[in-house]
Amino acid sequence: ELVEDPEVIERLHEIFGSRGRNMPMNNLRQAQVPQGASRIAQMPGTAPGLMCPIGDKVIFAVPGVPYEMKEMIEGTVIPELRRRAGDTGVIRSRTIRTWGHSESGIAEMLADRLDELDRTGTATIAFLASGIEGLKVRVTAKADTAELADAVVAAEVDEVAKILADYVFTTEDQTMEEVVLNLLRERGLTLGLAESLTGGLIASRLVSIPGASDVLQGSVVSYASSVKFDVLGVPVGPVVSDDAVRAMSEGACRVLNADVGIAVTGVAGPDEQEGIPVGTVFMATTLDGVTETSMAKFPFNREQSRQFTVITVLDHLRRRLLAR
Amino acid sequence: ELVEDPEVIERLHEIFGSRGRNMPMNNLRQAQVPQGASRIAQMPGTAPGLMCPIGDKVIFAVPGVPYEMKEMIEGTVIPELRRRAGDTGVIRSRTIRTWGHSESGIAEMLADRLDELDRTGTATIAFLASGIEGLKVRVTAKADTAELADAVVAAEVDEVAKILADYVFTTEDQTMEEVVLNLLRERGLTLGLAESLTGGLIASRLVSIPGASDVLQGSVVSYASSVKFDVLGVPVGPVVSDDAVRAMSEGACRVLNADVGIAVTGVAGPDEQEGIPVGTVFMATTLDGVTETSMAKFPFNREQSRQFTVITVLDHLRRRLLAR
Repeated sequence: ELVEDPEVIERLHEIFGSRGRNMPMNNLRQAQVPQGASRIAQMPGTAPGLMCPIGDKVIFAVPGVPYEMKEMIEGTVIPELRRRAGDTGVIRSRTIRTWGHSESGIAEMLADRLDELDRTGTATIAFLASGIEGLKVRVTAKADTAELADAVVAAEVDEVAKILADYVFTTEDQTMEEVVLNLLRERGLTLGLAESLTGGLIASRLVSIPGASDVLQGSVVSYASSVKFDVLGVPVGPVVSDDAVRAMSEGACRVLNADVGIAVTGVAGPDEQEGIPVGTVFMATTLDGVTETSMAKFPFNREQSRQFTVITVLDHLRRRLLAR
Repeated sequence: ELVEDPEVIERLHEIFGSRGRNMPMNNLRQAQVPQGASRIAQMPGTAPGLMCPIGDKVIFAVPGVPYEMKEMIEGTVIPELRRRAGDTGVIRSRTIRTWGHSESGIAEMLADRLDELDRTGTATIAFLASGIEGLKVRVTAKADTAELADAVVAAEVDEVAKILADYVFTTEDQTMEEVVLNLLRERGLTLGLAESLTGGLIASRLVSIPGASDVLQGSVVSYASSVKFDVLGVPVGPVVSDDAVRAMSEGACRVLNADVGIAVTGVAGPDEQEGIPVGTVFMATTLDGVTETSMAKFPFNREQSRQFTVITVLDHLRRRLLAR
């Protein structure tokens, strides 16, 4: 038998009201809950999740929208299943993120350490190439208590981070954007961007981080050449070049009134541009009045080239800030 | 027994060479292929996939990097398994994308049609709320031949699109960005953006589409208030307001030398700003010298608010271009 859950109705009115939309009568059916069932605490959308005990078994019902489902699975379903299973062993992981070396290269650096762990079985290490998130190295251990598992993982993270040295940009699972924003904030520096190839991707990644406004002044997304010339003051000439990216980075500092500049220009494809092949990228960083540039060629598709460009140019700035 | 695949070695040298990195010796092991196995045609990264026939069975081995795995599964594994299973029935789908109405609201509009399909069994309809991609309505049919299945799907797509009218922005599975870029290109109009809340997300979504450079001049990501005042010419005053977003949109047209403007400002959180609550968004579009504005409040997290803002403001421009 179905009963109406007044909390769900309240939440529905709240969601539709705040979006200025009328609630279709259809949605009221979402508030009908089987008798004896309880609502899963998480409810990020309009659909509630349900936990229905049947004897010593339990049926979970979660909505199909992926992010709603995931929040409920992680917040309620898995902890509840572990509790019911009487699972006492605790598995803990931490992720180190690296940039500047291939997955095989990182594995080669860690070869002795991996052999050692195979022998002792204290922890396991897994690699995952994650595009703009970097190349991840995950350390996992299982123990009787969370404290014990955490201690094993922490010791192993230290060991691995020492071996990988400055390829490591975080042992706290931060993104490259967070790491660079924190370094800039600690030094009281503001950041301005000039983005052609990446078309706003660097800025939009940075603003995803709460508190970005302390550091980020803004970005001039200069997709058309005329915007590079007129707004950023790039000298009229080839726009996919070392000279252009240098002028863009210095222009970003000037126009956006920022201490530090980052600029990117390149050929996204599908066609070559000014005789320069698809995948060619010029990057620049301006710090303390000095602009450094570099060039790369990424053999990936349009979207992957952009992602690699974002993390690569941010990593340049990170290394400069640390070496300052 | 393992044999060396010279094509894989060639590909590895190509990938490392073009990125200016040295290839670790470790990578050469990726070229070792079991005798009798063949390489899966797709190879987006450095790791090959394998197809190993054992009697009338087959073992597939694919790499763990998600996008590499997916390309091989879709390009080779599934077609090969279907061929081996002698599967002759053909399933085809097409997706209609909508914006401006909730999932339940769309379902209510289609209630009669859904009843009809339940009775006849000719096709099925599924809904998927997909954030920045819109609310998707997928029509699926199975038939003996691809031509037959395509015809059933096409007829049903027409039927559904007629019912949903101007909530539909594509029946060809295009993104809102593609639809708006195409409308602008057909009319010979260029576009300039001024983004505060979205921080470059609108621009970076637009440049993901090949050929965006015909239309998009650029974006002024004016995250700091000073950039709104100094670069875009917004009058000094509250920056999350109808007046500010209007000045931003007109400023984008002027500074970026564009025919059409889009602007967005709002409060991303975590804290309220100028007394305005988190989730409040002001949007503007400038077309033929006329600027229209609107306000919304999204009860979502930071990232979802941004996504809803992007598709909502692009939809405003779409409707204005169609009504022009």
